[in-house]
Amino acid sequence: MDISPNAIPDVVVRRLPIYARSLSYLAEEGVRSVSSQELGERIGVTAAQIRKDLSYFGEFGKQGIGYNVEYLLGHIRRILGLHEVWPVVLVGVGPLGQAIARYEGFRTRGIDIIGVFDNDSSKIGLQLGRNTVQPDSDLPKILQEHNIRLAIVAVPAVRAQEVVDVLVQNGVQGILNYAPIVVQTPDNVWVRHIDPVALLHSMTYYLSREDEHHAMNEH
Amino acid sequence: MDISPNAIPDVVVRRLPIYARSLSYLAEEGVRSVSSQELGERIGVTAAQIRKDLSYFGEFGKQGIGYNVEYLLGHIRRILGLHEVWPVVLVGVGPLGQAIARYEGFRTRGIDIIGVFDNDSSKIGLQLGRNTVQPDSDLPKILQEHNIRLAIVAVPAVRAQEVVDVLVQNGVQGILNYAPIVVQTPDNVWVRHIDPVALLHSMTYYLSREDEHHAMNEH
Repeated sequence: MDISPNAIPDVVVRRLPIYARSLSYLAEEGVRSVSSQELGERIGVTAAQIRKDLSYFGEFGKQGIGYNVEYLLGHIRRILGLHEVWPVVLVGVGPLGQAIARYEGFRTRGIDIIGVFDNDSSKIGLQLGRNTVQPDSDLPKILQEHNIRLAIVAVPAVRAQEVVDVLVQNGVQGILNYAPIVVQTPDNVWVRHIDPVALLHSMTYYLSREDEHHAMNEH
Repeated sequence: MDISPNAIPDVVVRRLPIYARSLSYLAEEGVRSVSSQELGERIGVTAAQIRKDLSYFGEFGKQGIGYNVEYLLGHIRRILGLHEVWPVVLVGVGPLGQAIARYEGFRTRGIDIIGVFDNDSSKIGLQLGRNTVQPDSDLPKILQEHNIRLAIVAVPAVRAQEVVDVLVQNGVQGILNYAPIVVQTPDNVWVRHIDPVALLHSMTYYLSREDEHHAMNEH
């Protein structure tokens, strides 16, 4: 089966890991079969959305019987490339980077942080989980030796672009960026941003609208 | 001006904080005027997208002159409700919660963490940034006293739903959830999820597709 990377909307690709995560919990709970309705309620999307999303990848489940949890999970994991473990580097070990380096939830879900890096000499040698902090200057060597294609960036905004440039020059094609700045990359490199403040601001939008409505009702 | 909360697509609402963030940087750099083209290149969206997004909120900028940075920033901040500071509680001070509590980037962008909570008695009294860790049992009192409407949840997945229930019962209407589980809330409560592993998986999807194509080319 050849899937053109452009055929599937990115919004669907972003939901697939959520389906996989929820199916993993169901499997752990010993649940063997789940309807699109039940899965949708757990995830907060409609049953129709789930059926439509999965239809991009073939036929799963039977009307009235639901999905076999293990089978669907296995299939989504293959679609996502998670039949193999992905080695990843982490750059930046401030408080957030240290929390990331120590978080066990990456390994259990197929993401193996094999190196952590910082440019602060006082942090070099620090033990974080399974890793010892290495200097940024070792990045190119490690990236090439281990054929690393994914990286997590947790440096301050002012350093993010230079770090991303080094990563991309040495073969990284997917970057999870915690720095609160949009980094520039070539077209063949994927970047996902995590900005908790921006997400909070997208909620203050709605909450302040409600205030307006309340205020209007009161007058 | 009455803006119905349902009139603006959520995807647009989620981009507004990114525009604000980028405009803040421009203002700090002393830039007074920016074209939709320049702003788009910084953010990674098209100029047309920016013009369309902003058109929901009125007329900004003039053809050929561009946007006044301070004016547009001020306007977007008001749209997002950021003319006031938002008091927020944080629940869960494992390594990630501690990093969140210590991060200065919330306060500088209008989000004031006024209380941090954990159910682990060994953490009570711990000083994190400006806050001292309090027991979860104090949550209802603090939420009500300070009229808190926004919360950050950084507890393990197994505890997330119970914590969210307490938050919602005590008036919280917006939740930033770091626990890798979809929490259930009433329709009038907004939830944004941060799951770094899911974001990485949405990139392994594309990278493993590339492998397939390479493999096909080689044969």
